[in-house]
Amino acid sequence: MKLRSWIGGLLLATAGATVWISPAGADTERKALPTYTMQPVGWVRKSGGKTFIEIDQRYQPALLGVDRLKSLQVLWWFDRNDTPEKRAILRVHPRGDPDNPLRGVFATRSPYRPNLIALTEVDVIAVRDNVIEIDGIDAFADTPVLDLKP
Amino acid sequence: MKLRSWIGGLLLATAGATVWISPAGADTERKALPTYTMQPVGWVRKSGGKTFIEIDQRYQPALLGVDRLKSLQVLWWFDRNDTPEKRAILRVHPRGDPDNPLRGVFATRSPYRPNLIALTEVDVIAVRDNVIEIDGIDAFADTPVLDLKP
Repeated sequence: MKLRSWIGGLLLATAGATVWISPAGADTERKALPTYTMQPVGWVRKSGGKTFIEIDQRYQPALLGVDRLKSLQVLWWFDRNDTPEKRAILRVHPRGDPDNPLRGVFATRSPYRPNLIALTEVDVIAVRDNVIEIDGIDAFADTPVLDLKP
Repeated sequence: MKLRSWIGGLLLATAGATVWISPAGADTERKALPTYTMQPVGWVRKSGGKTFIEIDQRYQPALLGVDRLKSLQVLWWFDRNDTPEKRAILRVHPRGDPDNPLRGVFATRSPYRPNLIALTEVDVIAVRDNVIEIDGIDAFADTPVLDLKP
């Protein structure tokens, strides 16, 4: 691994994936930002070739009417990237290809971002109790789900 | 204010806005859920009839390439509803109209929801340094912004 200084940050070159690291963590002069907390309302489940969102039972009342929707926006958490180091990555090579010029994560759908919110639109197939069957999702099984919106 | 018991929860009737309150806070038997933390990456600003997103300078590198986008998905925080009581509201009358039947918040875009993430698609007008001029947004001035996606 080699390090190269950059204007205000670092370019970190690892095997095939150069990324831009924010210096924010090292800067103690800046004013503190407020912190917002979230807990999962459910999880992605995959079973028998099907994909589901299992809502925690305490949130099941919030599903009233979801069965009448054709599609849902699913907000979920990139939980595998929830480390200070990964959350400090502000620029990436799109699709992890070093031939693609570095781009700011706010101009990409990269799973590296300061707040690890992912967004996927899915089709609703059926709702049974606290479980929604969907057509599929680009998230690993057991990924935490944060919110659902029509 | 009158209280009426409900299956597993409470119907809370206030002036013109009956909502369904989750009993989750009172239930200490359930297993603890993990907590995820976020900090704002910027704020909605309104000035001279124009609307902007001001990105905190520590996140400015993440804007590289945003100037080439026509539109952006802005994820922001319903910060005025960030209390345990409001976050326990799981069913609402859509558009605050008591004539609309109660619906689960996951089937609505209500600002009452367990995780207070809001989502608005906006047009990008211009990007200057750490400020994005946009066409408008359904958020109050100074609302915290969590993420931007193409």
